[in-house]
Amino acid sequence: MRDAYTDQLDAIFDDLAAISRRVQVAVAEATEALMTGDATIAEKVISEDAVIDRAREQVEERAFELLSLQAPVAGDLRTVVAALRMVAELERMGDLSVHVAKIARLRVPDVAVPDEVRPTLSRMAAVAEDMVSRVHDVIAGRDVEAAIALGRADEEMDQLRRTSFTELLSGEWAHGVEAAVDIALLGRYYERIADHAVSIANRVIFVVTGHNPSAA
Amino acid sequence: MRDAYTDQLDAIFDDLAAISRRVQVAVAEATEALMTGDATIAEKVISEDAVIDRAREQVEERAFELLSLQAPVAGDLRTVVAALRMVAELERMGDLSVHVAKIARLRVPDVAVPDEVRPTLSRMAAVAEDMVSRVHDVIAGRDVEAAIALGRADEEMDQLRRTSFTELLSGEWAHGVEAAVDIALLGRYYERIADHAVSIANRVIFVVTGHNPSAA
Repeated sequence: MRDAYTDQLDAIFDDLAAISRRVQVAVAEATEALMTGDATIAEKVISEDAVIDRAREQVEERAFELLSLQAPVAGDLRTVVAALRMVAELERMGDLSVHVAKIARLRVPDVAVPDEVRPTLSRMAAVAEDMVSRVHDVIAGRDVEAAIALGRADEEMDQLRRTSFTELLSGEWAHGVEAAVDIALLGRYYERIADHAVSIANRVIFVVTGHNPSAA
Repeated sequence: MRDAYTDQLDAIFDDLAAISRRVQVAVAEATEALMTGDATIAEKVISEDAVIDRAREQVEERAFELLSLQAPVAGDLRTVVAALRMVAELERMGDLSVHVAKIARLRVPDVAVPDEVRPTLSRMAAVAEDMVSRVHDVIAGRDVEAAIALGRADEEMDQLRRTSFTELLSGEWAHGVEAAVDIALLGRYYERIADHAVSIANRVIFVVTGHNPSAA
């Protein structure tokens, strides 16, 4: 049974899905700037973050309107509050992409990532981007199966982060402290993007099933 | 004019103030573990984070109850939603204290912080702890003046972070890559604690004045 409440809630989820696509582009472009030392692309990621921030404000306004006018209770209320949290996490993922782009920009015309750690860092970036892409599908389709699968992708991210530390701390690191600090912080940023992706997926599971997977 | 709504909202803010005190203890103890290499205190911070997590759940339940039973609108609704965000940020500050404690634990019986960067890192830790203490007062007193002052404390944190990078990258760093990575990540964790403190203070300003300082 469709009603005004359902339409408004669908509109909020459509907005969330659209924002997740923007975040995916931000992650992909920040990574491109990082791996190629392209200042123009880095600047684009940094300046376009304002679009994600504005989109977040719009979702918040829609959610407040829904809460004010419809005064939802129980599951409906939890869904609207979950949407408010999801949009905050998407905005944060955009901020983390900006942090990656800023490290890229700081090292131009050099590239922040030494050759020998490129495979691990490229894979971290690819996993992060893939997780954001899957977050889009999880939100757009309220897809619990896909949300559960996202938790498994995060395990690869955790493993990659351990590999990255091993590479840094092997005793054979020849790229100095600056590059090591860059790699450690970049690893942290990609890991946090993945964490937020899992958190959003868990919120969708909660919205659809009423069961909170992270509390298990 | 006092009513059931006001009492319930006050109870939520009392809970938030109590959680901020717990976070302050977590930051202080994580720093103590870090600076002394004390594994017992590190373990305490890590295990007691569950108390903050449970307290967060209680605030969320109270807020949901208020939204369900009272269906607040306009400023009242924004206050409850702000409380939900503030408790999420306080929980995150607890998580960041755990990250500090885990670096401390990883280096036991050594100490992660070399002598020459101790002044800067100790000051970062002190500023972070002070900011959390002030967040308590801001929440407990709905204190807009104190909230505005918190933004200025954050400027010192930004300056300390720049100093820390200068120390790491001066070319005279003699403590290897592992210590450098530790210091960079620790700096990031304290900086994020400060960021969340400012964000909470801004939410209190918004709740009291109806004006959002971060949107200026």
